[in-house]
Amino acid sequence: MSENQSILVIGADPAGLQASKDIAEFGFRVVLVEKRDELGGAPIRWKYHTLAPDFVPTEKVLGPLIDFVKNNKLVIIYSSSIVDSYEQKDDYFKVRILNLKNKSVSYEKVSAIIIATGFEHFNASLDPRYGYGINPNVIGINELEIMLSNGKIVRHDGKIPKRIGFILCVGSRDKATNQWCCTVCCGISIKQAIEIKKILPDAQIYVIYMDIRTIGLWEKLYWKSMEEYHINYIRGRVGENTGQEKNYWLKEKIRLLEDLLKLCLI
Amino acid sequence: MSENQSILVIGADPAGLQASKDIAEFGFRVVLVEKRDELGGAPIRWKYHTLAPDFVPTEKVLGPLIDFVKNNKLVIIYSSSIVDSYEQKDDYFKVRILNLKNKSVSYEKVSAIIIATGFEHFNASLDPRYGYGINPNVIGINELEIMLSNGKIVRHDGKIPKRIGFILCVGSRDKATNQWCCTVCCGISIKQAIEIKKILPDAQIYVIYMDIRTIGLWEKLYWKSMEEYHINYIRGRVGENTGQEKNYWLKEKIRLLEDLLKLCLI
Repeated sequence: MSENQSILVIGADPAGLQASKDIAEFGFRVVLVEKRDELGGAPIRWKYHTLAPDFVPTEKVLGPLIDFVKNNKLVIIYSSSIVDSYEQKDDYFKVRILNLKNKSVSYEKVSAIIIATGFEHFNASLDPRYGYGINPNVIGINELEIMLSNGKIVRHDGKIPKRIGFILCVGSRDKATNQWCCTVCCGISIKQAIEIKKILPDAQIYVIYMDIRTIGLWEKLYWKSMEEYHINYIRGRVGENTGQEKNYWLKEKIRLLEDLLKLCLI
Repeated sequence: MSENQSILVIGADPAGLQASKDIAEFGFRVVLVEKRDELGGAPIRWKYHTLAPDFVPTEKVLGPLIDFVKNNKLVIIYSSSIVDSYEQKDDYFKVRILNLKNKSVSYEKVSAIIIATGFEHFNASLDPRYGYGINPNVIGINELEIMLSNGKIVRHDGKIPKRIGFILCVGSRDKATNQWCCTVCCGISIKQAIEIKKILPDAQIYVIYMDIRTIGLWEKLYWKSMEEYHINYIRGRVGENTGQEKNYWLKEKIRLLEDLLKLCLI
């Protein structure tokens, strides 16, 4: 592949941004197509407080990547745009790029395509057992990130929660919803549990899980959460959040009184 | 980087072989250094029957990679050799390669280095709780692969085992041995459990685990093992293999009679 060829990157989420930077640094032209106006994907859109496992502010990680692709002459950005079709030629692809706002069409000739579509949070109201969307004290991973950004963890009534439960694997590894595991919800939840303890050192935190999948660099975070922050881990599946008397039942008949229940909905 | 530059790959295990092939296909010269005589790493050395998650015979996966690096003119192989020192120059590394057999020394100039050191199985006799190295019916992941290659699963006395236990995480996530998780032992053990069931459909198989970490492609194997092959999963840590009356006790006081106990020692 010669250096005057172009590579198409679909999606300006963190993976797409990093790929675009790396390719440009190798000296190739990058065509970066993002369907939204803004770059950065879900962590920027949902205003994540910090990123796991290193507790680095989101802006500090993604800001320089966004600046790089915006300012590097080798990266051509099509925002508010999608690739709606392509033709494969002998040794390149001819891709059609549609601007979703003004409906203008552009064509690019690229020799390789990287798909970095990013992710959406699972809509936990699809699994009604947990009361998400019904009980205002049941919140998602993204809503907790906003609380962490504000430095305030509060119940819907403004009171400070004493006991906080994390339910992992919501909508995950479940034939009724998604059959797969998102791979990152364990680590992000543990990071969030530690951050809550930094704000509310006396809060009791329970992480209710199927399997803890903190492989590689995340493992240290898991140990730290138990040894330094005394996060409690309970293996089981929450059968139902009854919403009555603020009681939550595990299948194993362990009773937990929770003030604020945080779901893992990535 | 121009195409007449070289890239050093240390280790001809599967990752090193694949990296060498990919780099050569991009048109760069590869210097592949392997300390052993043979190429292929642990799966070849330990004669793995098949590779997870796709049950493909090891030779079928690694044979073509080994043939490629042996026959491609861009790949220079130093077997029975190690890189014992290097100097960093302005824009390249000067590496010293020592042949362990004849003690001859070679120098290569490379512009990048890939370290693919491969892996060794954990020596389970370092954790004496399980009786590995004492009870001949306690075997390792590699010893079971050899049985699977031979198509015969037998106890030390030649009898066919009726109940087989897998203990996962031996030597793993344990401050006394290794603090990390190998990430592959769940998947390999599940693959092996399914293969045993293909040979001995009536055997009862118990997998004793801390967390099942079958992320991505491995997830299907996990479900298949339960739904099609009726593998039993028990969460817990084995406190001790007493070796008496062939009884094994879990911390939770669940009693299991096991004929053949297979450890996960990767």
